[in-house]
Amino acid sequence: MRHRLEVAAKKGMLADSAMIAHGRGEAYDYLLGERTIPSAHFASQIALQSLQQAEHPVLSVNGNVVALAGDEVLQLAEKLNCPVEVNIFYRTPERMHALLSDLNERKKRLGVEVEILGENPDATIPGLKGPRAKCESRGILQADVLLVPLEDGDRCEALVAMGKTVIVIDLNPLSRSSRRGSITIVDELSRCLENMLSMPMQDLPTSDSYNHSQSLQNALNEIVDGMKYKFSEAKD
Amino acid sequence: MRHRLEVAAKKGMLADSAMIAHGRGEAYDYLLGERTIPSAHFASQIALQSLQQAEHPVLSVNGNVVALAGDEVLQLAEKLNCPVEVNIFYRTPERMHALLSDLNERKKRLGVEVEILGENPDATIPGLKGPRAKCESRGILQADVLLVPLEDGDRCEALVAMGKTVIVIDLNPLSRSSRRGSITIVDELSRCLENMLSMPMQDLPTSDSYNHSQSLQNALNEIVDGMKYKFSEAKD
Repeated sequence: MRHRLEVAAKKGMLADSAMIAHGRGEAYDYLLGERTIPSAHFASQIALQSLQQAEHPVLSVNGNVVALAGDEVLQLAEKLNCPVEVNIFYRTPERMHALLSDLNERKKRLGVEVEILGENPDATIPGLKGPRAKCESRGILQADVLLVPLEDGDRCEALVAMGKTVIVIDLNPLSRSSRRGSITIVDELSRCLENMLSMPMQDLPTSDSYNHSQSLQNALNEIVDGMKYKFSEAKD
Repeated sequence: MRHRLEVAAKKGMLADSAMIAHGRGEAYDYLLGERTIPSAHFASQIALQSLQQAEHPVLSVNGNVVALAGDEVLQLAEKLNCPVEVNIFYRTPERMHALLSDLNERKKRLGVEVEILGENPDATIPGLKGPRAKCESRGILQADVLLVPLEDGDRCEALVAMGKTVIVIDLNPLSRSSRRGSITIVDELSRCLENMLSMPMQDLPTSDSYNHSQSLQNALNEIVDGMKYKFSEAKD
């Protein structure tokens, strides 16, 4: 994963804060045991079902998402027959160009048919200011169910406020995105997307069986269980 | 802190992994509540006493340490009247030059008299291979008590194996350095050093009153306490 980020950084795909954000994720993944915990697996089933049942599902991607799991995002979009929209917090023409080129190269290599949006934003997300608010009317604006991996907390909140079902993938169960999302999968991005790609599309649980607070607390409990009496001599 | 790292990166002081490592630290600091916990305060008192009572105390610094808290390290070295040794894992002439220049600029600005070692390594740390083993015979090699903030696990182990008292400053209580160190302070580097700078040098507790496992478990417990029932609706 670090190598993927280094390559992406050289291509100008990443924001300055990308490596620090990834390091934070690494810390939480370590605490989770670098595995998909049961509550995350369940949440990803709920998420896949929601995307499948949506009228206008969209997969929103930023620099780190494309760098870490660009292939898996495109494969999931093909499986769901939905567009991918590049939607970055620190939006510059150079970064947008680097990300769109990278995704188009991946499309060719994988031989998938997926519409990539984001190049021509004609709408804004209400409640956000500046370039970070930009989106496409036939993409994020009209989406009823959105997958937003590694999303910024402000944007996550603004999308939820629009009445959308917002699916977050985030390793920190305490982050604002994790808390504010409609469905949160506390898992490493590529591992989560690979799981979703290998899931059968039938017989998935529906969102009535998903308890958001319980799911996040389960993730915290997994971390806590790994920390109790770690130093056996200190049990006293 | 991020700004300090960005400046240092531009000066060529940092390894490629520096930002990711910092991000991991940020995650643990967040979980600790971004404050000095009582067990860390106590450990830093023990550490200061050990350094003060040492025959040959040395403060070992790498790129992130100089970037984040170069001033504080120099001030502590002056307070203890001991040398600072630049000792980096990914040792290149360019990085060594950048770090030594930066420290010498800081010395002038602060007006402190501190010996900076590391430029002319004439010894190796047994058990390590390649450039990362290099050190100075009148610095790290002969030190009886060493402060190694943000140290790599391998090097920490090798220094402990030499029979030295190794004082670690690390935000992750589960890291190999934290576990293997003789005295570990689970705290953010600049906060920890500022505390040590403001401590009176008299009446400090001695190392017999320090329980390493208990101190690390206390740090884990602080994290755990912040996670229990975070999502109040999920208490049951």
